[in-house]
Amino acid sequence: MKQQLILAFLAMALTMSGQEELRNTAGGAPVVHNDGRVTFALKAPRARQVLLALDNNREQPMTQANDSVWILTTPALKPELYRYHYVVDGLKTLDNDNVYVMRDVSTVRNYIIVPGAAADLYRVQDVPHGNVSLVWYDSPTLKTRRRMAVYTPPGYDAGRSYYPVLYLLHGSGGDETAWLEQGRAAQIADNLIAQGKANPMIIVMPNGNVDEQAAPGSTPEGLITPTFNHKQWMDGSFEQSFGDIIDFVTKNYHVSNNKRKRAIAGLSMGGYHALYISANRPETFGSVGLFSAAVTPRNNPGSTVYRDLESKLKVQFNERPKLYWIGIGKEDFLMSDNLKLREILDRNHWRYTYHESEGGHEWRNWRNYLSEFLQLAF
Amino acid sequence: MKQQLILAFLAMALTMSGQEELRNTAGGAPVVHNDGRVTFALKAPRARQVLLALDNNREQPMTQANDSVWILTTPALKPELYRYHYVVDGLKTLDNDNVYVMRDVSTVRNYIIVPGAAADLYRVQDVPHGNVSLVWYDSPTLKTRRRMAVYTPPGYDAGRSYYPVLYLLHGSGGDETAWLEQGRAAQIADNLIAQGKANPMIIVMPNGNVDEQAAPGSTPEGLITPTFNHKQWMDGSFEQSFGDIIDFVTKNYHVSNNKRKRAIAGLSMGGYHALYISANRPETFGSVGLFSAAVTPRNNPGSTVYRDLESKLKVQFNERPKLYWIGIGKEDFLMSDNLKLREILDRNHWRYTYHESEGGHEWRNWRNYLSEFLQLAF
Repeated sequence: MKQQLILAFLAMALTMSGQEELRNTAGGAPVVHNDGRVTFALKAPRARQVLLALDNNREQPMTQANDSVWILTTPALKPELYRYHYVVDGLKTLDNDNVYVMRDVSTVRNYIIVPGAAADLYRVQDVPHGNVSLVWYDSPTLKTRRRMAVYTPPGYDAGRSYYPVLYLLHGSGGDETAWLEQGRAAQIADNLIAQGKANPMIIVMPNGNVDEQAAPGSTPEGLITPTFNHKQWMDGSFEQSFGDIIDFVTKNYHVSNNKRKRAIAGLSMGGYHALYISANRPETFGSVGLFSAAVTPRNNPGSTVYRDLESKLKVQFNERPKLYWIGIGKEDFLMSDNLKLREILDRNHWRYTYHESEGGHEWRNWRNYLSEFLQLAF
Repeated sequence: MKQQLILAFLAMALTMSGQEELRNTAGGAPVVHNDGRVTFALKAPRARQVLLALDNNREQPMTQANDSVWILTTPALKPELYRYHYVVDGLKTLDNDNVYVMRDVSTVRNYIIVPGAAADLYRVQDVPHGNVSLVWYDSPTLKTRRRMAVYTPPGYDAGRSYYPVLYLLHGSGGDETAWLEQGRAAQIADNLIAQGKANPMIIVMPNGNVDEQAAPGSTPEGLITPTFNHKQWMDGSFEQSFGDIIDFVTKNYHVSNNKRKRAIAGLSMGGYHALYISANRPETFGSVGLFSAAVTPRNNPGSTVYRDLESKLKVQFNERPKLYWIGIGKEDFLMSDNLKLREILDRNHWRYTYHESEGGHEWRNWRNYLSEFLQLAF
């Protein structure tokens, strides 16, 4: 009987390898050492050259450790989420031994997390977790159904409290999944709430591309290749349709009606959206976060959405926002846009928080800005 | 001014390539032709040999179309979701031009959909979509918090109707995301509901591995490599803790208390779970679906969960289930298990629906079984 069981197990194990190819254990997923060094290994027996492309760094040659495995150990890396891929004889390839991948527009890459400091907020910790939903809503203004991602904090379902809500907007090339995937928004919120550094809140992540209903692959267009180029973007239409999103959230979630419990923030194009949505609805948002925000109107500068920014900001700042937070990296190509906006704010003596970081237009900054903003917004 | 705008655009476009590497358009994602043929193309200039690994088929050599691009056009393929990868000089690699990937245990692969027939149910169509949530709940029995995926049908939020609920269980090596990702459960439900072939229903997809709280990467263990090998599995503990899941769903969703509006189904290990959970709770489920189900107790045959199956089934069938549905492929290694179960049912003259398909222990069968089951369960 025991033998039969063993045979049954063997049969199962063998057949299951049909579900999943037998795993190559000679290479292995990257090993993150305690001191922050990371050992990358790739099995590529017939390769002549293997490079490691780690984040935005230059590609580095790996060393052939034996007949088949190529290896590279980095110096100690700063705690951070790092994307990487390999380049084998000129071919970009993912790591077969690491199932953790994320998409940036039309590029899928592996990632690892070097723990410690700020990066500990990006890790899943042993704390209560909020729920994450992909939710369809009606947009009467855009005459279509659209999808948003929604984070509800731990305990949300149990209580009937009225929660603060943050509308968190993605950048050009992104969609409603970007802040969850690359932004680690759910992990950051879980961890800050657990540490008592942020109040439990709902985070609403809509899709800011008015010409798509949802992220690529989740629409009737099928498995299309995602693109930066949208037929319609930054022309005022997303800002004008934003009331549909607020209406839906107000009707379907336990959210506070108090302006000080309503915030909006976004990165790049999402910062542009946050700037103009909040300026055009001066009584709606108590806190505003502009992360590497575009400022200059792009495709439809004559739109009522974009006209008279300074006089709109005047009304908004007369209402005394709880927080007006601007973050940008020293090397960001949108620095001049942000200087222009800050000049307007400065010359009117309107109070805002300015956070200048290292680096440029990149997710490591935006994750960090979100971590800062969540602690101050409510 | 116009020139400035153009310059700003150029600067933006160039800098944005920092967010995303410039896309190689010389290869390109697979092209699915109208007749079902598919052209695969991979840019691999320095490769000596490139193979296409399509689903479970043998690897096929691709042809060097020019200096850098390798090409293969298949014969007309049956409508289906197909996974694939390339093998370049012995190295398994994903398609850099196709962002659509899915994980099967510890293997990430690209996929395409050849439309038509049953596969049209797996595509996102222009129909109302349900919402999908990842939801944490308390399991007092297992003394931990755990995660489930929940599909709610279009219109769920608006009404206060009481919906039928299907508990849909994954197989060994899977987790709460498997039915959504590989099973296309949300697309299948959306499409069948839109066609009037299935009643709007809630689908609850719990995690059947009692030694993990949630899918790999979503727990404090971090970015671990997923595995088939669980410390604890098929030992009765998941079945015993299932009441926690029903309790949570009953409390938090608009579900009917009518037994005929409650179904349970699962694939492989999930079929095993569905078999024993429903047999041990004979008054709970009106419909039961066993997809390539394991039947023979594995790790703890003496458990009260697994003892006296026949007398438990007797009580269950005395209650006249609306549907007892068994599906399995001709080549499935669990065929003998299923024959054993059917012998019990046959000799007692208990009514069940038997669906024997081509193929073996594979997702193309399970997607199809789900499509059948949803039309009959409620």
